[in-house]
Amino acid sequence: MWFDAIVEIERKFLVPELPQDLERWPATRIEQGYLAIGDDGTEVRVRRRDGHAVLTIKGGGGRSRMEEEFGIEDERFTRLWPLTEGRRLEKTRHVIAAGEGLNIEVDVYAGALTGLSVAEVEFGTEEAADAFEPPAWFGREVTDDARFKNQRLASEGAPAGAGD
Amino acid sequence: MWFDAIVEIERKFLVPELPQDLERWPATRIEQGYLAIGDDGTEVRVRRRDGHAVLTIKGGGGRSRMEEEFGIEDERFTRLWPLTEGRRLEKTRHVIAAGEGLNIEVDVYAGALTGLSVAEVEFGTEEAADAFEPPAWFGREVTDDARFKNQRLASEGAPAGAGD
Repeated sequence: MWFDAIVEIERKFLVPELPQDLERWPATRIEQGYLAIGDDGTEVRVRRRDGHAVLTIKGGGGRSRMEEEFGIEDERFTRLWPLTEGRRLEKTRHVIAAGEGLNIEVDVYAGALTGLSVAEVEFGTEEAADAFEPPAWFGREVTDDARFKNQRLASEGAPAGAGD
Repeated sequence: MWFDAIVEIERKFLVPELPQDLERWPATRIEQGYLAIGDDGTEVRVRRRDGHAVLTIKGGGGRSRMEEEFGIEDERFTRLWPLTEGRRLEKTRHVIAAGEGLNIEVDVYAGALTGLSVAEVEFGTEEAADAFEPPAWFGREVTDDARFKNQRLASEGAPAGAGD
């Protein structure tokens, strides 16, 4: 077992048109489903990515969230997956090195969310998050738009006008 | 790490008056809190009992529930505990050997739930559950009364008339 506990500081933007060179960056397929989503936004999800399964607990919402991860055996993932029915999503994540130690994660959704793409950037400090200058191909910022949380996308689908 | 995946078959009864000999059975103090409770009743909780911390995921409701447990480090329990605020309970569990391989777990609640006591019996098969004859000191059966689920007790408190 391995684990990781962090407070995430991140900003999230829509990507109306994918950058031309996206395919040259490393990409991984992700499938994830939510076991439970609490009234206060606390979420518990399972995710499989490149054959590795992880259980993640995220508290709260907004730019800083408490996150706790557990690596889990495939067998356990298989048992838990049925509990996520109706709260699942699939996406391909491309990771672009954006200089100054920053990575841009571009999530291109599949299945029921086809057509939606979102870029997330994670920062070490609140100051770095404030100072970040979005590249020209980023669209509207949706960091604080709860409809674009993965837990909401998984259970409710894409909001109208999400391709803007 | 250890784990356990089972389908629980159990019946639950109120205990209006504790049996006289309760103290001679082994007892442990349990504190537990819910990280998230989904709309469909799926719950994710952390529990500490005799110094051992466990994360448990339970699906569905009623007599048979899917359950998946993870042993977790104390450090991780400490980080997760704040996420359970407003959804916690404490109880002392007494385990009574009831013959024929059956154990009766008597949970005597503390804190905000003081005055409530509940007996649970777990069975190997649905047939054994049906055949079970409750002892005279058992009160009303509440197996299917959702208000007596620990997740509801933790977030909403004891229902009116729960001491009956």
